[in-house]
Amino acid sequence: MNSPIIEQLIKIFSRFPTVGPRTASRFVFYLIQKPKEEVEELIKTIENLKKEIKNCSFCFNPFEGEGDLCQICSDKTRNQTLLCLVEKETDLIALEKTRKYKGRYFILGGAISALKQDELKKLRTKDLEERLKNNLEIKEIIIAVNPTTEGEATALYLERMLKPLNIKSTRLARGLPLGGELEYADEETLSQALENRK
Amino acid sequence: MNSPIIEQLIKIFSRFPTVGPRTASRFVFYLIQKPKEEVEELIKTIENLKKEIKNCSFCFNPFEGEGDLCQICSDKTRNQTLLCLVEKETDLIALEKTRKYKGRYFILGGAISALKQDELKKLRTKDLEERLKNNLEIKEIIIAVNPTTEGEATALYLERMLKPLNIKSTRLARGLPLGGELEYADEETLSQALENRK
Repeated sequence: MNSPIIEQLIKIFSRFPTVGPRTASRFVFYLIQKPKEEVEELIKTIENLKKEIKNCSFCFNPFEGEGDLCQICSDKTRNQTLLCLVEKETDLIALEKTRKYKGRYFILGGAISALKQDELKKLRTKDLEERLKNNLEIKEIIIAVNPTTEGEATALYLERMLKPLNIKSTRLARGLPLGGELEYADEETLSQALENRK
Repeated sequence: MNSPIIEQLIKIFSRFPTVGPRTASRFVFYLIQKPKEEVEELIKTIENLKKEIKNCSFCFNPFEGEGDLCQICSDKTRNQTLLCLVEKETDLIALEKTRKYKGRYFILGGAISALKQDELKKLRTKDLEERLKNNLEIKEIIIAVNPTTEGEATALYLERMLKPLNIKSTRLARGLPLGGELEYADEETLSQALENRK
């Protein structure tokens, strides 16, 4: 009953992360009601994005500017012996916001739920191996995946992959989050908080 | 730390319904990683949308095609004595999918949370009054707003507005949804299910 154009745009928006067909429809009707200039601004900005933004040739972090390396990777004052593996771009941003990490990053491009070949293809493991071979100064790898089932599977796979390279690998600490209450913590988190007490 | 283009696009996507800054960032990084052709398809479709889709001059339902009226409003076999008021386009689609309603619609353009002047401006009440004045065949108005606080406030406002016009107004029934279980129903729903038993 919707027009073909509306249906097509709903289909495209449904492929966006976290978006289902219902939210996609709301996006389409939102755009229909928006003034022409605002929609043109959206289009112009997406066009600029695709024109000006490139992936860093080391860490895959998207950036705007000269050269092949992003601002983080081209900053020689950062600790070159540390490499932090994250699932996606927003995880890198979250870690940068802490201002506590001064090494480099590598964006894996996702997490895996199983050690199947087509699942593994989602991760940039070949690129990671190549970076490690060409950057022998890297002494520690922080596997900063999400504390989820997929994150766990990814971390286990990476640890196995890194073992023969003899590089120290670490994981983010698990425990109670700030403001969290014991009585609402899940058993796994509480167990880990107890185990890693200090 | 993000590039200005990325920041701008995050800001634009944050204005989309249901989208916060975190989801907006994920949309931007999703678009960065997408092949050029797919992003061009998105842009082309949005451009077509703005070019080809217009609002129906009676019900405000967006449509594609000749004339000023959408497919529903130009269908003379539909019951012209019924008018169903909905908050938004997706609510109209949901009702059409039931295939049980054969009257016309009017999209209010939202719901209000209070009877404040700037809140009321969100609703197309002036247009509604004009439609009712020019369509004296309308004998019943179904106020099909959402069963939320805002929906309730909107319905009360509309009922008060319709009273002097001497047109019968009805509301959607309240009760247990299909597959719902008594023990999980909220008290308000259960009370209404009991009250409206038949």
